[in-house]
Amino acid sequence: MSRDQAVVALDGMGGDNAPGIVVDGAALARERFPGTRFLLFGDPARLKPLVDRRKDLIPVTEIVVAEDQVTPDDKPSLALRRRRQSSMWLAIEAAAQGRADLVVSAGNTGALLAMSMFQMRTLAGAHRPALASFMPTARGESVMLDLGANLECDAENLAEFAVMGSAFAQATLGIDRPTVGLLNVGSEEAKGHESIREAAAWLKRDGSPVVFHGFLEGDDIGAGTVDVVVTDGFTGNVALKTIEGTAKVYTNFVRDAFRTSTFAKIGYLFASGAWSKLRQRVDPRRYNGAVFLGLNGLSVKSHGGADALGFAYAIGVGIDMVRHSFQDRLTDGLNRLRAAAPGADEPAGETP
Amino acid sequence: MSRDQAVVALDGMGGDNAPGIVVDGAALARERFPGTRFLLFGDPARLKPLVDRRKDLIPVTEIVVAEDQVTPDDKPSLALRRRRQSSMWLAIEAAAQGRADLVVSAGNTGALLAMSMFQMRTLAGAHRPALASFMPTARGESVMLDLGANLECDAENLAEFAVMGSAFAQATLGIDRPTVGLLNVGSEEAKGHESIREAAAWLKRDGSPVVFHGFLEGDDIGAGTVDVVVTDGFTGNVALKTIEGTAKVYTNFVRDAFRTSTFAKIGYLFASGAWSKLRQRVDPRRYNGAVFLGLNGLSVKSHGGADALGFAYAIGVGIDMVRHSFQDRLTDGLNRLRAAAPGADEPAGETP
Repeated sequence: MSRDQAVVALDGMGGDNAPGIVVDGAALARERFPGTRFLLFGDPARLKPLVDRRKDLIPVTEIVVAEDQVTPDDKPSLALRRRRQSSMWLAIEAAAQGRADLVVSAGNTGALLAMSMFQMRTLAGAHRPALASFMPTARGESVMLDLGANLECDAENLAEFAVMGSAFAQATLGIDRPTVGLLNVGSEEAKGHESIREAAAWLKRDGSPVVFHGFLEGDDIGAGTVDVVVTDGFTGNVALKTIEGTAKVYTNFVRDAFRTSTFAKIGYLFASGAWSKLRQRVDPRRYNGAVFLGLNGLSVKSHGGADALGFAYAIGVGIDMVRHSFQDRLTDGLNRLRAAAPGADEPAGETP
Repeated sequence: MSRDQAVVALDGMGGDNAPGIVVDGAALARERFPGTRFLLFGDPARLKPLVDRRKDLIPVTEIVVAEDQVTPDDKPSLALRRRRQSSMWLAIEAAAQGRADLVVSAGNTGALLAMSMFQMRTLAGAHRPALASFMPTARGESVMLDLGANLECDAENLAEFAVMGSAFAQATLGIDRPTVGLLNVGSEEAKGHESIREAAAWLKRDGSPVVFHGFLEGDDIGAGTVDVVVTDGFTGNVALKTIEGTAKVYTNFVRDAFRTSTFAKIGYLFASGAWSKLRQRVDPRRYNGAVFLGLNGLSVKSHGGADALGFAYAIGVGIDMVRHSFQDRLTDGLNRLRAAAPGADEPAGETP
C-alpha cells in the first residue's frame, strides 16, 4: 500500500451520532487526503444509503457486514469476549491483519483499547501502550500521554511513553526534534515519585532518543513549555479533564459577563468576529483523535460525541501517522532507548 | 482568647513583596475583623516605619525581633535545622505555643510545612497533614486537598483528608453539610487505584462523618460538582497548577481575539464593565490562602507573589477557621471516622 493511498478501517456503528458522522467524516477526510480508501464496518441497511448520498465515496468505500456492535456501557472485558462480530472488532481486525493501515472508532474507549491490544499486541520494545492526544497551548499545540491507558507506571513505562510521544509529535505536528518533559510537582531534580526521577535520569543519558527538557508543573501544559508532556495514565486523565472543565467554566464566565449590561451586549456584537476566531482556536473538534501508541498497528479513538468534522480530524491524525512513518520512527526510538538504558553500556557479567 | 479577637502571628519577612504587603494586608484584614491583634515577626528597622504609617495598627500590633529569615531557595530540611531565629520559625512558634491563634506566611512553602509540622505536630487521629485551598467553580467555590504535602497517599490518608476538607468547608465557606468527592479517572466503582476505592468504601460506611458523593473526574472540579475535592498531593498539585495554567492561556486567547480588528477593539471598550466583573470573579487574590490541615495549630500559606489584598484574604481564611471552631470540628470528625472504620464494629479478637 502506498503511503499516499492509505486504507482506513472505520467502525461505522461507534459513537453517539454514528453512523452519520462516520460516513460524512470520511467524505471530509478524503477532501484533505484524496488518495484515501475506506473499509466501512457495520449494518449495510444503514450504511449504504449514507454512502450513496456521497458520490465521491462510492468508488473508494467497501461496506463490510458486521452483525453486532459494542455499546457504550459494555465492560471492556465483556466486549472482548462477546463482541467478536461487532463493527469495532472487525474494523480492528482489518488493521491488525494488514488489510487496512489504521482503524478509527468513536465507540467505547475501554473496549477499543482492550480489543486493539488483544488483536494488535504491543510493539517489540514497548511494554505498555499509551493513549495520546493534542491540546491547544499558548505556543500552538502539544502532545500529552498517557491519558488513561495505564493508571500506574514505572520508570521504564514513562521512558517509553517519552519515545512514543516524540515520534507522534514528529509524525503529526511535523516537529523535527520535539522537546519532551515529565509532569511533576516541581522542577527541582529531587522532587516527585521515584519512577519519575528514574525516568528522567534515563532520558538524560547519552544516546537518549528524545530531546529531554526536564520536569514540568501543571501550568507548563497550557504554556506549551514542551512539545510532549509525559505522565502516568491517572495523572494524565485527571489533567486532561481538568483542562476541559476549566475551559468550559471560563467560557461560561465570559458569556455571563457579557450579559450583565446593555453596553456589554453591544460590545459582544462588535466583537463577534473576535469570538468566532477564539472559538476556532480552541475548537475541540480540531483536537479530536486520541491514539493508542505502542501497538503493532494504528488505532485511533474519536470522541464519542464528535460531529463529522471532528471525526474527519481523527481520521486525519491516523493518516498523518501512516504518511510520516510513525511506526518506523517509534521502533527506531525504542531501540535507541534500549541502547541508552542504565546498565546497557556495561560489559555483561561485570556488574557488581 | 476570645474567638472574635483572634491573635495572628505574621511572618513579616516572607514573600516576594514583604514586608510591605504583610503590614498592609494586616491593616486590610482588620477592617473585616476589627477585634484582631497581630504579632509581627521580623526586622524592626523595616517593620516599624510600615506599621507607623497605619495608625489603626499601632495599638494592636506587637513587633517581635527576628534576626534571620527563610529564603525562597532554602531547602525545607536545611531551613528546619538552620533558621531557628527566622521570622517564619518564630511566628510558627508563637502559634504552636498558644500565644497566637494562627500563623500566616507568604514565604517558602516547603519550609513553612516542615517547620509547622515540626513545631505543631499532627493532630491526634490525623496521620498526615494536607494542604488545602479554594478555587472558583461554575457553582461558586470549592475546596481541594491535598495540594502537595503528600505525594503518595493510602486509603486512610485520603479518608482523613475528606474529614479535614469537610471541616474546612464548614468553617470557611459556611456550608453546613459539604459534599465530598474523590478524584478518579471515572465515576464507576471499579475504577482507579486501590487506595481510592478503599477510601470510598470507608467514607460510604454507616456513621461516616462526611457527605460522600462518590468519584469525580477532572472536569468535575471546575463544574463544582462537590464542595470538597479529595486527592493525593501529586495529583492535587498537578490539577491545581493545570487549572491556573489553563485559565491564563484562555485569558490570553480572549485578549488576542479582541486585538484582531477595529470592530473587536470597539467591542472591547463597550464591554469593559463586563471584563472587570469577570476579572473580579476569577481574581486569584480572592482565592489566596492555602492552609495546612491536621496539625495542632493553624498554619496559613499566602501565595508568595500576593499583594496586600491577597495577603488580607489569607489572614481572613485563618480567622474564619478560628471563629468557626475548625479544630473542634476536625477532632470530632476524625473521631467519628475512626468509629466508622472498617473493622471497628467487629468485636476484638474475633477477626478471622
